[in-house]
Amino acid sequence: MEEAFTAALRHNGQLVTDYLLDYFKKTDITPDYLREGVNFYVRKGGKRLRPAVVFWACELAGGDAATALPAAAAIELMHTGTLVHDDIIDRDYMRRGGPSMHAHFQDHFKTQIALNLLQHFSNSIAMLVGDIQYSLAIAMMNDLPLSVDRQVVQWLIHNLSAHWVPEVMSGETLDVQYAWQSLAEVDEAMILAMLNKKTASTFALAGKTGALIGLNKLDLEHPMVTQLEELCRNAGLAFQLQDDILGIIGDQDELGKPVGSDIREGKKTILVTHAYNKATPTQRQILENILGKSDATGAEIKQAEQLLVDLGGVDYVRGLADKYIKLAQTALAALPDHPVKRYFKDWIDFMINRSC
Amino acid sequence: MEEAFTAALRHNGQLVTDYLLDYFKKTDITPDYLREGVNFYVRKGGKRLRPAVVFWACELAGGDAATALPAAAAIELMHTGTLVHDDIIDRDYMRRGGPSMHAHFQDHFKTQIALNLLQHFSNSIAMLVGDIQYSLAIAMMNDLPLSVDRQVVQWLIHNLSAHWVPEVMSGETLDVQYAWQSLAEVDEAMILAMLNKKTASTFALAGKTGALIGLNKLDLEHPMVTQLEELCRNAGLAFQLQDDILGIIGDQDELGKPVGSDIREGKKTILVTHAYNKATPTQRQILENILGKSDATGAEIKQAEQLLVDLGGVDYVRGLADKYIKLAQTALAALPDHPVKRYFKDWIDFMINRSC
Repeated sequence: MEEAFTAALRHNGQLVTDYLLDYFKKTDITPDYLREGVNFYVRKGGKRLRPAVVFWACELAGGDAATALPAAAAIELMHTGTLVHDDIIDRDYMRRGGPSMHAHFQDHFKTQIALNLLQHFSNSIAMLVGDIQYSLAIAMMNDLPLSVDRQVVQWLIHNLSAHWVPEVMSGETLDVQYAWQSLAEVDEAMILAMLNKKTASTFALAGKTGALIGLNKLDLEHPMVTQLEELCRNAGLAFQLQDDILGIIGDQDELGKPVGSDIREGKKTILVTHAYNKATPTQRQILENILGKSDATGAEIKQAEQLLVDLGGVDYVRGLADKYIKLAQTALAALPDHPVKRYFKDWIDFMINRSC
Repeated sequence: MEEAFTAALRHNGQLVTDYLLDYFKKTDITPDYLREGVNFYVRKGGKRLRPAVVFWACELAGGDAATALPAAAAIELMHTGTLVHDDIIDRDYMRRGGPSMHAHFQDHFKTQIALNLLQHFSNSIAMLVGDIQYSLAIAMMNDLPLSVDRQVVQWLIHNLSAHWVPEVMSGETLDVQYAWQSLAEVDEAMILAMLNKKTASTFALAGKTGALIGLNKLDLEHPMVTQLEELCRNAGLAFQLQDDILGIIGDQDELGKPVGSDIREGKKTILVTHAYNKATPTQRQILENILGKSDATGAEIKQAEQLLVDLGGVDYVRGLADKYIKLAQTALAALPDHPVKRYFKDWIDFMINRSC
């Protein structure tokens, strides 16, 4: 990864973190542990791949990146809210190298609450944390400076609340549904449609939002808007496909979450469906037995992982991710020359050349 | 209850229901069961006490009630979202005479999903339903007609997302926290502060929202705004206190939810803390044993209920509710004459003279 890109990512990420923590300070949230919960994932950092795009898209479209800060923060916070709720849904106990939100509450209250109530209480408070984060993210858009066209601001607020949230929740629902459906019921097209809603939509939103603020007029058909949305949507799809690969062959320490959880949850990724389609009846039996087995042993996880690799699942999804990365690169090439394009180039590369 | 009031409540309620169901139709939500989930509580009806206030406050402040429809619907939908999430948190399986949201999903999927996954899946989808409802409620405010001052619209959206949501979630958190705390740790002032955040805030918001739309200018200090907010906040507190009374001595069939659930959850109401303070050490022991005992028998529930009545808890809370109703009536008396005031008078009465 290029040095300048890493530095820019870190710089923009810090702006977003500072903005969010300051915003939370100005919001009345009690008791303290609920307020701390709202801060929790934000303090942990993260790659901040989405807000970075908002800044750069704004510049590329002719704006001053600084004006886009509230929108960049809003999109990061929306994403954070989805992580909090997803982690409850997926029963993930780790996130960014530490406890997930509900796991944190379990730890925090373990000496005060009876064991039979602890898990439910922790999930409940984590749910309320996510509720607040979604809501504050929408509110934040209103903080865009007065120099930003009011029609743009209103559209951003409306789009986030009327379209983006239902779309992402639809994607999340399908993801959870596929997990309990049998391998034979779920195919690649269904998964791609789900990934578009659940993951790519947020990256697409980031590109579109930055472009509209940079243009400073509500021109949704402007090539800058459509091209940046296209670029980010495709890179976002590649990002999720890479995520699915890391869920099988990634390094637990680098990822900050346990390897094998995708298998124990029975997640239906394209990697899995592709391998399943190539498998012999005996191999299918093995996959069906282990995928979704919440108490699968380490040996079983290893066996399933090996099978998914041997059946070409990883190679296939890597090829698919490359295809979407190329589409993103084509969209980038069509955009006018600008110094910020090199960040986009590195960003696109990073979306798949990452180990965490 | 006066005939004209009931008819007005029903008429306004129908407007809100129609508006909401139409709004959902225009929103892209998949799969079908998620979309149906978003519609579910809205279709069940309900008293629609909050949107009615938005309409009447708008008229009282000089506006045309019809202009306030999207705001009335938004507040009803926000309230609906809190019910969906609350029912998960409180593990309530009944709502408005039928299954609660997550109970509905359990029923819907019982033949398709393995039993060990069914409850978690149902809770997860119900959580996502609430997420969509909160978000669409904010979006809906943007649907206010162009005749409504844009500063008012922006303030309503911002207030809902930046203040109301964190306030209600703070109240909800405290309510859940008090449930696992011991009776000795929770006092009346703490509970009143919690009820203000959790319940009265939505009624206050309804009054304020209607008044601002009726005035059609952003004048937050206008007596019409402050008086209507005051009226609704106090009536809202009385409403919740009456709710706590019905939770102990109400009729299960009329309420549409099982009596005894407040006791099994260990809800810390003022009724309970007052009784506890008056109790002998032996009586305290009995209360401590039964309150929060999730598998309490019918006989134990009856014993606790009787004790709460005998120790004066019900009478005390009834007196407290009367105090808040009088404050609401005083606020109403200070408002200028208007035909719609008789609806407010009946509405205030209904907030405590109700059996469900």
